[in-house]
Amino acid sequence: MPVNHQILLDNRPEGEATVSNFKLVTTETPALADGQVLVRHHFLSLDPYMRGRMNAGKSYAQPQPVGEVMQGGVVGEVAESKNPKFKVGDKVVGFGGWQEYSVVDGNLPGVLRKVDTTHVPLSHYLGAVGMPGVTAWYGLVKIINPKEGDTLVISAATGAVGSAFGALGKARGCRVVGIAGGPEKCKYAVDELGFDVCIDYKLHKDAASLSKALKDACPKGIDGYFENVGGMILDAVLLRMNAFGRIAMCGMIAGYDGQPLPMAYPQLILVNRLKVEGFIVSEHMEVWPEALAELGTLVATGKLRPRESVAEGLAAAPEAFIGLLKGKNFGKQLVKVI
Amino acid sequence: MPVNHQILLDNRPEGEATVSNFKLVTTETPALADGQVLVRHHFLSLDPYMRGRMNAGKSYAQPQPVGEVMQGGVVGEVAESKNPKFKVGDKVVGFGGWQEYSVVDGNLPGVLRKVDTTHVPLSHYLGAVGMPGVTAWYGLVKIINPKEGDTLVISAATGAVGSAFGALGKARGCRVVGIAGGPEKCKYAVDELGFDVCIDYKLHKDAASLSKALKDACPKGIDGYFENVGGMILDAVLLRMNAFGRIAMCGMIAGYDGQPLPMAYPQLILVNRLKVEGFIVSEHMEVWPEALAELGTLVATGKLRPRESVAEGLAAAPEAFIGLLKGKNFGKQLVKVI
Repeated sequence: MPVNHQILLDNRPEGEATVSNFKLVTTETPALADGQVLVRHHFLSLDPYMRGRMNAGKSYAQPQPVGEVMQGGVVGEVAESKNPKFKVGDKVVGFGGWQEYSVVDGNLPGVLRKVDTTHVPLSHYLGAVGMPGVTAWYGLVKIINPKEGDTLVISAATGAVGSAFGALGKARGCRVVGIAGGPEKCKYAVDELGFDVCIDYKLHKDAASLSKALKDACPKGIDGYFENVGGMILDAVLLRMNAFGRIAMCGMIAGYDGQPLPMAYPQLILVNRLKVEGFIVSEHMEVWPEALAELGTLVATGKLRPRESVAEGLAAAPEAFIGLLKGKNFGKQLVKVI
Repeated sequence: MPVNHQILLDNRPEGEATVSNFKLVTTETPALADGQVLVRHHFLSLDPYMRGRMNAGKSYAQPQPVGEVMQGGVVGEVAESKNPKFKVGDKVVGFGGWQEYSVVDGNLPGVLRKVDTTHVPLSHYLGAVGMPGVTAWYGLVKIINPKEGDTLVISAATGAVGSAFGALGKARGCRVVGIAGGPEKCKYAVDELGFDVCIDYKLHKDAASLSKALKDACPKGIDGYFENVGGMILDAVLLRMNAFGRIAMCGMIAGYDGQPLPMAYPQLILVNRLKVEGFIVSEHMEVWPEALAELGTLVATGKLRPRESVAEGLAAAPEAFIGLLKGKNFGKQLVKVI
């Protein structure tokens, strides 16, 4: 039985999440029953939604149980199999959580998916060609539903979702404007990800100042906005939305730690006849095949070159996660566990 | 040429609107050109949207010009006609504004509509079987799109829009909960308009308290909300929305005078995957025939018994309008000018 290191949620945060909310433990992987598969994790995915699940209160998902392994997406390979559908060495995507190994019932639909790493690196199945990529696709295609020439804006533009959104928006003939933190991220968004413009929100002290920068970047106004952040950025964007604009609400990371952030001008939803819609991509599994096909092609053809921030070793996961919540990552945040 | 009294917008409000923003003037109706019709107004419609148009700033409609007759819906009868489509005595609905007479080009599509007063009193064409009724219909049918058994909530429940919304919701087998100001309005909402429950918001000092009352009134949560008010009421409702709930944003009267009112918990749009959509009924003329047919039938069969607050005489219009903004009206606010 291989030794398995795991990270548990040890206690719930009060206010800001900290590394002391987590605990590293050592255990052994159990013997496999018929139908089960042992997966050796290569990369763990760290995602902002995990912060919401660390709270006890109502969120869109069940809270992460205290004392159990932190849940989350993983990629890896089959180390042992008692299931004829999976053989040792198969590359797979699953939901094995913050640990080195997971045991999975390979017969449950959707829990373990074999992937092809010929043209797409394994880790990208946690990012551009995985949940974050499909998240961008759903918000863009199903909520914003842009037409050629529309102006689109996304916050957290160089993150896993933002990178995919940029490429998907450009592929539809839209003007795509990013918002990110710092000159390095903004340069990368334009030079590597194909954004038309990227605004550094750290140069702006308030919504009025950021809104003025958006006016310059979006001379025809904003038709579609993909919200990852909330707070001051949402207020600034709302001031520039065109009539009949659409806002896909995917995340509000600015308010995840501590106090909720109000929306200053909700009457603009009425004045500009906006549609604002929240969504969770795991509730729309029907779009995944179409979305993954497009995203895989964009990556394989070099039109989407996502960047990754990789923390080394399972023990680095808590600190990398806290950094993600503060915007310290640059691109998709992963933990390499092998 | 009959003498015509008119009320002009004399100056724009700074903060609260007051009667001194308006001016009463006396003039004469002009001679008719070919194709024109002279309409003698019977009732003027006073509506919350007019407050937004009194400001100079960007709103969904062009600002009301200073020095010109206040625009607005009217019902009346044809007093003189140089148009073969209209004859003297025809009952009509138009957009003649705050005056006793208007001259209309009867050939312009949609500006003047003949109505049948056999089963529906003329004044109701400004309320339940007019713009406010269609507003309720659009928000309910096209945005909230309820299924039987859903729980619906509307603020300003006894107003022209709210009354129609209650009847339309009950006709679809929904639980309909109103929010209104004062015990008299709440009793009327339940006894006469058919609401299942009506909550008196004046008994609640903050969103938390109102939200608790909503929990009792909506044991299965809220599936659809029709927003007329904004501010504290919107915050309270958001706390009780079910997953995949829909919010039709029609008005935010609480913020029309003075400072905008923030939305305290926009992250609930995400957490509960809500759809929030602003709309203006005049941009959806395609639904009017279907909506008016249903509303006319509800009134003619006694299933919708709308109440009216009638101010007497053109000169009373400004004060009645200010009262409407403060919730002093009880039902559809009209001005009787003949």
